[in-house]
Amino acid sequence: VHKAPELLKESVYGLTELHRSEIKKARVVGNPGCFAMSCTVGLAPAVKNGLVELAGIVCDCKTGVSGAGKKPAAQFHYPERYDSANAYRLTGHQHVMEIERELSALAGKDVKVTFTPQVIPMTRGILSTLYGRLAAGATQAKVLDAYRITYDKEPFIVVKSFADAVQTGDVRGSNRVILTVACDERTGTFRVVSHLDNLVKGQAGSAVQNLNVMFGLDETLGLGWPGAHP
Amino acid sequence: VHKAPELLKESVYGLTELHRSEIKKARVVGNPGCFAMSCTVGLAPAVKNGLVELAGIVCDCKTGVSGAGKKPAAQFHYPERYDSANAYRLTGHQHVMEIERELSALAGKDVKVTFTPQVIPMTRGILSTLYGRLAAGATQAKVLDAYRITYDKEPFIVVKSFADAVQTGDVRGSNRVILTVACDERTGTFRVVSHLDNLVKGQAGSAVQNLNVMFGLDETLGLGWPGAHP
Amino acid sequence: VHKAPELLKESVYGLTELHRSEIKKARVVGNPGCFAMSCTVGLAPAVKNGLVELAGIVCDCKTGVSGAGKKPAAQFHYPERYDSANAYRLTGHQHVMEIERELSALAGKDVKVTFTPQVIPMTRGILSTLYGRLAAGATQAKVLDAYRITYDKEPFIVVKSFADAVQTGDVRGSNRVILTVACDERTGTFRVVSHLDNLVKGQAGSAVQNLNVMFGLDETLGLGWPGAHP
Amino acid sequence: VHKAPELLKESVYGLTELHRSEIKKARVVGNPGCFAMSCTVGLAPAVKNGLVELAGIVCDCKTGVSGAGKKPAAQFHYPERYDSANAYRLTGHQHVMEIERELSALAGKDVKVTFTPQVIPMTRGILSTLYGRLAAGATQAKVLDAYRITYDKEPFIVVKSFADAVQTGDVRGSNRVILTVACDERTGTFRVVSHLDNLVKGQAGSAVQNLNVMFGLDETLGLGWPGAHP
Repeated sequence: VHKAPELLKESVYGLTELHRSEIKKARVVGNPGCFAMSCTVGLAPAVKNGLVELAGIVCDCKTGVSGAGKKPAAQFHYPERYDSANAYRLTGHQHVMEIERELSALAGKDVKVTFTPQVIPMTRGILSTLYGRLAAGATQAKVLDAYRITYDKEPFIVVKSFADAVQTGDVRGSNRVILTVACDERTGTFRVVSHLDNLVKGQAGSAVQNLNVMFGLDETLGLGWPGAHP
Repeated sequence: VHKAPELLKESVYGLTELHRSEIKKARVVGNPGCFAMSCTVGLAPAVKNGLVELAGIVCDCKTGVSGAGKKPAAQFHYPERYDSANAYRLTGHQHVMEIERELSALAGKDVKVTFTPQVIPMTRGILSTLYGRLAAGATQAKVLDAYRITYDKEPFIVVKSFADAVQTGDVRGSNRVILTVACDERTGTFRVVSHLDNLVKGQAGSAVQNLNVMFGLDETLGLGWPGAHP
Repeated sequence: VHKAPELLKESVYGLTELHRSEIKKARVVGNPGCFAMSCTVGLAPAVKNGLVELAGIVCDCKTGVSGAGKKPAAQFHYPERYDSANAYRLTGHQHVMEIERELSALAGKDVKVTFTPQVIPMTRGILSTLYGRLAAGATQAKVLDAYRITYDKEPFIVVKSFADAVQTGDVRGSNRVILTVACDERTGTFRVVSHLDNLVKGQAGSAVQNLNVMFGLDETLGLGWPGAHP
Repeated sequence: VHKAPELLKESVYGLTELHRSEIKKARVVGNPGCFAMSCTVGLAPAVKNGLVELAGIVCDCKTGVSGAGKKPAAQFHYPERYDSANAYRLTGHQHVMEIERELSALAGKDVKVTFTPQVIPMTRGILSTLYGRLAAGATQAKVLDAYRITYDKEPFIVVKSFADAVQTGDVRGSNRVILTVACDERTGTFRVVSHLDNLVKGQAGSAVQNLNVMFGLDETLGLGWPGAHP
């Protein structure tokens, strides 16, 4: 049960890159889920610019184990978790509606996504591979351009083309998202790979970024060296 | 350069479940690639039975590091590889043509797939999440039925519905493939998760299975306790 | 509280290599603790043959996490445990008295050991480094000889000299103990490194070996391919 | 071959806590090896204060894989290294002479140590368990006092008693050494557990600390948030 339902009305969705001006004026900000951050940042420019077909978007997400929180459980017990990967909650994950609400707002019409959460044997990091069909006329070059233009001035979003080698380790302990635009023109498929640290940009780092915006501070304040544990 | 091109003509593709009768009579069998095994076994029943649209099939594949072989390299050096995941060779991977050739043969027409190989910080196992659009009339129940019927008598293929918890650790050291049929009817999306051990069914185990077929032996011979290293 | 204290009197300590003849006639056998197995097997020949001073023996033991059992706990939660090692229970560990009782019996006088249990971020395996002062006249060559003679006919104990490269991965899934004799004559120090799989020779494998002895079966029966999980 | 042998004469050993005043005046400082740092800091107060017998000191050291450097090699290839631990170079390791030279200087007579380097499947961290015989009259309480007094004003050395839970993860990314004093009075054994991050206090962090001393800067400058890779 929500503890303060009367505040929900004035609450703003804290995905800074999409809602910065509202966050500036907000008293209550709801921080995005880690998967939702990863997918929404990775899909927004394509959806907003009509570069991907709205039907058939797929979010294939792999998270490190810290995404499940600190509470011990059988499936996160070290001997059960090392050297093993699995999908879970293949329908009904709570982050789906965050992604769909944001993408629908950007598209101006209803967007549904297929969402596959998966746990892999690492501690920190989310690697989301985002798929769809390239819209008529859309190409790798046009998609890459749209992403570069959208995020050009963002301090925490980095756009790369498929030629670059990126891994989740590159954003470990950082508030950055690295997006690799890697459409497959041979099959007409839109594809973007989104990399973030679920404990920083996917969680506490994002909250700090929002606080900076709310209080009129430099948006990168306190985010140069996020915590190293675990 | 191929060492014996004159043998290519009589060579048979060693995906036992699809080519058993040819393998029985073959002198030369080409063992499938680990990703190709994972994806082709996971897609064949849907493609053969017209349950998935042929355009827009996506193979999102995650492999343990042993899939890259024994040769040391910077990106597989323990400190560089632990706690980090990455996509690579986003176009032109050598396993794509194996998958497309087999699916095209089953469909009776040209099939192209979008293939995303990814390395995750584990040693053994491949988790492939396979997507497409459900064909008109196809449902989770129909897809599940088709998979169960297709693989009913296969000693090494296990079909489960999305209600079951499966992880790659469950096939560690085993020659089995576990397929989880988990279509998302809400979005009209076909989805199957394929789990195998890249060093057994994805490699040496599959070769042993083929040798058993070629020599008329019990197909499961020698595969009860595959090697534990690494 | 012990459930059947009346059976304690006839119970035999199930360290097969030291108590085989008693186990043969026993109805009740108590399986050794994993650390106790590792240390006692590694120290017995030196103690029995007077090659190490009885005062000042040190057992520095490193175990994989599965040694703590299946019950989830904060310190074995994957994100807390990966990439971190620690010592624990530096006094009063329950395996100390097993080791001391066995060594005292072999020496014919009271032996005390310093025991340091440590957890390292792996799943299976115990690496115990065993130290003491070389007794007068004892050398690496003499110690190595004593170990080779003692364990010459044992199916599950392998003795190597310090020139050989051994790691716990070599006994993964196996009922073997590999002992590396590596005394440091420069400092007059006795040193043996003991490697076993805590889930096999350190636990269930050892129990199977004892059952084989009790029932007059081939001692290696059922131990060729121990379980691969986890 | 050394490139500038003429500088060796004026070179100072850069273990800041032992040689601060010399480092202040030095032009050339030689940074300690990671194991040598771990052991020397952990043994110095006991040796200097005569609390441990000089004969029979043992350094049982476990290091993460990054201690071996960045160069890929078969034994550090991810699939060969995960879930396996091993001892190596059981005689003749290059860090032994660093430890012995420092301890001999503190004792005023020749000290030899038995050194056991071991690699465990983690990336960062060294856990060294240091043993010896308690000198006549030495107790856990006296040893603990000596360590607390010795390191009381050191910004990077933390002394704890055996009652505290410490793991190498606690110093991950930090320039600190945590020393747990845990003598075993029952067996008359001196024991200290030393925890550091081999890439920081065991390497680059220590160098930065020395540069701060050499240039008269705050000794902790630049060491608040050491690098997070790998």
